Amino acid sequence: MSGDSTTADPLDVSIPLLDDEARQTARDRQAELTKPPGSLGRLETMAAEIAAMQSTTEPTVDPAVVVTMAADHGVVAEGVSAYPQSITAAMVANFCDGGAAVSALCDAEGIENVIVDMGVAGEVPESVVDHSIADGTANIAAEPAMRREQALTAIAAGRSVVEEHASEASLIGLGEMGIGNTTSSAAITALLTDTPVSAVTGHGTGIDEETKARKVAVIERAIETIDPDRTDPVAVLRSVGGFEIAGLVGLTLEAASRRTPVVVDGFIAGAAALLAAEIEPRVTDYLLGSHESVEPGHEAQLNALDLEPCFEYGMRLGEGTGAAIAVGVYRAACAAHNGMSTFAKAGLDGE
Amino acid sequence: MSGDSTTADPLDVSIPLLDDEARQTARDRQAELTKPPGSLGRLETMAAEIAAMQSTTEPTVDPAVVVTMAADHGVVAEGVSAYPQSITAAMVANFCDGGAAVSALCDAEGIENVIVDMGVAGEVPESVVDHSIADGTANIAAEPAMRREQALTAIAAGRSVVEEHASEASLIGLGEMGIGNTTSSAAITALLTDTPVSAVTGHGTGIDEETKARKVAVIERAIETIDPDRTDPVAVLRSVGGFEIAGLVGLTLEAASRRTPVVVDGFIAGAAALLAAEIEPRVTDYLLGSHESVEPGHEAQLNALDLEPCFEYGMRLGEGTGAAIAVGVYRAACAAHNGMSTFAKAGLDGE
Repeated sequence: MSGDSTTADPLDVSIPLLDDEARQTARDRQAELTKPPGSLGRLETMAAEIAAMQSTTEPTVDPAVVVTMAADHGVVAEGVSAYPQSITAAMVANFCDGGAAVSALCDAEGIENVIVDMGVAGEVPESVVDHSIADGTANIAAEPAMRREQALTAIAAGRSVVEEHASEASLIGLGEMGIGNTTSSAAITALLTDTPVSAVTGHGTGIDEETKARKVAVIERAIETIDPDRTDPVAVLRSVGGFEIAGLVGLTLEAASRRTPVVVDGFIAGAAALLAAEIEPRVTDYLLGSHESVEPGHEAQLNALDLEPCFEYGMRLGEGTGAAIAVGVYRAACAAHNGMSTFAKAGLDGE
Repeated sequence: MSGDSTTADPLDVSIPLLDDEARQTARDRQAELTKPPGSLGRLETMAAEIAAMQSTTEPTVDPAVVVTMAADHGVVAEGVSAYPQSITAAMVANFCDGGAAVSALCDAEGIENVIVDMGVAGEVPESVVDHSIADGTANIAAEPAMRREQALTAIAAGRSVVEEHASEASLIGLGEMGIGNTTSSAAITALLTDTPVSAVTGHGTGIDEETKARKVAVIERAIETIDPDRTDPVAVLRSVGGFEIAGLVGLTLEAASRRTPVVVDGFIAGAAALLAAEIEPRVTDYLLGSHESVEPGHEAQLNALDLEPCFEYGMRLGEGTGAAIAVGVYRAACAAHNGMSTFAKAGLDGE
């Protein structure tokens, strides 16, 4: 399907099984490459897993696309962020100008960065892909973030972004921007991993302890007041989520349905991945880890998704920055897998 | 100096102080980039440290060169390796054909891979840089690996490789190949970190427990018999080292003297870095970590050198493979540092 959101059910997704034969072929090849067996460690596993996802003998990350979805959050009215809401639109403009961290990292890694407006409150440049649902979500301190229909439309939009802007991608990285979205992600993570709000709520963009205490209280009250059905991922999403998170849910589902590996970024992308996995558990087969965030709720997400990070650099920026760096690691794994000689070809005795 | 080994003392090296002002300028810039302060975590530190090494406002890894030095080890006669000595020359040919892991990784990362024969027992292709000292070291189970004069010549040769093949490099990665060289590296590490041999001896290319026990016994006996002065790094090197390790010592000293950051690879490169740091402690200011090897002695080296690895993938291949992947990480750190917009330039309010 390609995002015809008016007729198709955006939750109706068919995700293929991993190709066990391709994985085995990759493992067999690894054993024949000119190195001691297993000496490339996790790089060997990475290549074999990507081979199983892509159902190929030549796993690759190229072309790679990082999709950065942006939206605003009504909950910033509660004073839960270090930055004003206007920063979301300003950063989207910065993405378009190539001046953000994700811009510089995608440039360095040879990755296309697609910017999508899923519901930014302010003006954004015309070059941004427009799937805006509304000028930010409602304030979850007072009411559900969005209507169920809006959540479904945003998921459908996320799916259509794959068709329209990343259909040739061998790998897709998740990125996001939205002042207030660690609040939303903490609420989602608490609900879906059955963890106390205080254990999954962090300092976001850099708030002090007093603001963090307020953030925890706002989330706890929102969950208590709205009381969504935790077994219904769309109910969780519409209650405490964000439009950019909903878009990433659709993006993840659609990518997995096409055998395209999805590199999860940090805490907000992780919340989207959790929701996608609740909608269709098999989606986790197509997820790849990137960094381990300093946000305290990231670990609960990684455990729930059984996702192994590639590195831990104390990052907490989002945008897709961790995913962009991880693309380089997966590229290296594929390069060794495809580019190395076999013992036979090199005239070496494998024993 | 440029490796005029016949007249100059190869241990006479002047390593400049890190440029504290360049580091502070880099930190100040990081605070002005369009992101919450500190949100790129260790990437910010990496960029600032490289700026201090290179004494620049625009830290860079490009052009990057990984130098892979190869040599043979007489100790393989004791049955300490899973592979025969002939594999060293065969792998050097494989490097030249672009079929090895380090070849594929350097290719993927845009790194030049310079191959140097420091003392391979067999025939190597003509394209290899020839600094061969001898057809492999002597067997340390019976006598010192080399004469002191050979060690000094090999160090001088390593220094000249920088001048002749990496003088334009912004960053140099250490790589090596030599059947038997984990035995040599374990001996060096035990001697220089005052750690029991059994604690720093691993499975190398994949030996079984029985062979590993023999490897430990051979090293213990060699150390006891030769009994080098542990406070004299050249004595340690000539007693239990290897020609490729000696070459990497010279390479590291020379690179540091030119403010060129050196990415240390795994356990063998780490042994060379330890020796270089004993010769001139300030060399550690110019070392950058790559992976954390599965070789048990690697941790003792990292602690002694105060070197932080970037990732841990269970690698144990050498060649410069870990260094090649790490170049991508340091490149990302520099790309964010140089390529991002400031709040002022982007018209954003930094507060």
